[in-house]
Amino acid sequence: MSQSGTDQRAVVLLSGGLDSATTLAMARAEGFDCHTLAFDYGQRHRGELAASAAVAEQLRAAEHRVMNLDLGAIGGSALTDRAIEIPSETGAGIPVTYVPARNTIFLSMALGWAEVLGAWDIFIGANAVDYSGYPDCRPEYIAAFEQMANRALRATVEGEGYLRIRAPLMDMSKAQIIAAGHDRGVDYALTTSCYNPDEAGRACGVCDSCRLRAAGFAEAGVPDPTPYQD
Amino acid sequence: MSQSGTDQRAVVLLSGGLDSATTLAMARAEGFDCHTLAFDYGQRHRGELAASAAVAEQLRAAEHRVMNLDLGAIGGSALTDRAIEIPSETGAGIPVTYVPARNTIFLSMALGWAEVLGAWDIFIGANAVDYSGYPDCRPEYIAAFEQMANRALRATVEGEGYLRIRAPLMDMSKAQIIAAGHDRGVDYALTTSCYNPDEAGRACGVCDSCRLRAAGFAEAGVPDPTPYQD
Repeated sequence: MSQSGTDQRAVVLLSGGLDSATTLAMARAEGFDCHTLAFDYGQRHRGELAASAAVAEQLRAAEHRVMNLDLGAIGGSALTDRAIEIPSETGAGIPVTYVPARNTIFLSMALGWAEVLGAWDIFIGANAVDYSGYPDCRPEYIAAFEQMANRALRATVEGEGYLRIRAPLMDMSKAQIIAAGHDRGVDYALTTSCYNPDEAGRACGVCDSCRLRAAGFAEAGVPDPTPYQD
Repeated sequence: MSQSGTDQRAVVLLSGGLDSATTLAMARAEGFDCHTLAFDYGQRHRGELAASAAVAEQLRAAEHRVMNLDLGAIGGSALTDRAIEIPSETGAGIPVTYVPARNTIFLSMALGWAEVLGAWDIFIGANAVDYSGYPDCRPEYIAAFEQMANRALRATVEGEGYLRIRAPLMDMSKAQIIAAGHDRGVDYALTTSCYNPDEAGRACGVCDSCRLRAAGFAEAGVPDPTPYQD
């Protein structure tokens, strides 16, 4: 069932965070039927799965799916390994919250679903400005994934088209992202960014992700709807 | 604990089939400590998981892991969807046994594990000769994945090295593969290739995979240890 005027399908990676919610709103504004995909990979921050479902509904995704991912089996990240403490300050280099090959794994799953759906566009909220040192958030990575994807696909081999990896936030500041989503009706109260929320889902306000988010709202001049811990 | 003389680690994708068993034997012969990875993705052919563990032990892998993969959530293949019948004859074009983005997903998981292990080599039994029309078994696909991987990795961004996707079987015929594995001590009785085995694990002898395998043993002049259904 189409919810847009184009019948064009897209797969949108939707984490429940601010960036991917904005990305979904931008894809919807282009007229895509958006099939949203979230991952349950044992993340400590369980609230993001509920957030992604709420965002998908608010922005009228055609379909929202959650895929179980056994990332804990390969280890290596503070986001999935509870023995590693989450850092509260932005340091130099790549943070311990890095998940090995995360975007590659997420995009690979999106690629498989895109092929099944006949979608030629995959949207991801990757951002090179506030990217916290994740190498798989850079434009050269996205371009390389797109090239690989077009050598992996049955439809490409058969000459039917070209799959695009769309990262519309790539060169935007956090404030620009918030302004863009605000203009397109994103309810940011539904989104969650904190690496270390309390049991009620309230943000810590001190982790890298909270700091970037709060500064973005301030700079954009948009009221920050984030519930913070006392 | 190193089981070779080099202390070099490699991740080896190990399906329990003939090709990946041979690939593991070739990696071991190069002196790698091999960390083998199999996937439980809801495949109809459950016996391949037991086969991969047996092959890993026989060829003295340093470690064997099985990762759960929720591929059924994106559908689209006769190998995971029991409503689609397995074809018994080799036809034109790409078969319905194609799993969307399968090698991309498998290699992505291997990439994450390689990063955690500090491994610079990932081995996959991809083969362009007997490849049954899977686009992600071609050399141009493997090269594109390698390029993408080296833009995704923390260690590459930090200039520490270059990750290689190794597909040593790429240009070999099935007979050459069997001869190479036979020379390196692979016990092919432990491997399984059939898309449609019976409950005892015996091969059907008529699916694409069985036909290619049987012809390979005959051409290599190696006795075929495969148990077939009556």
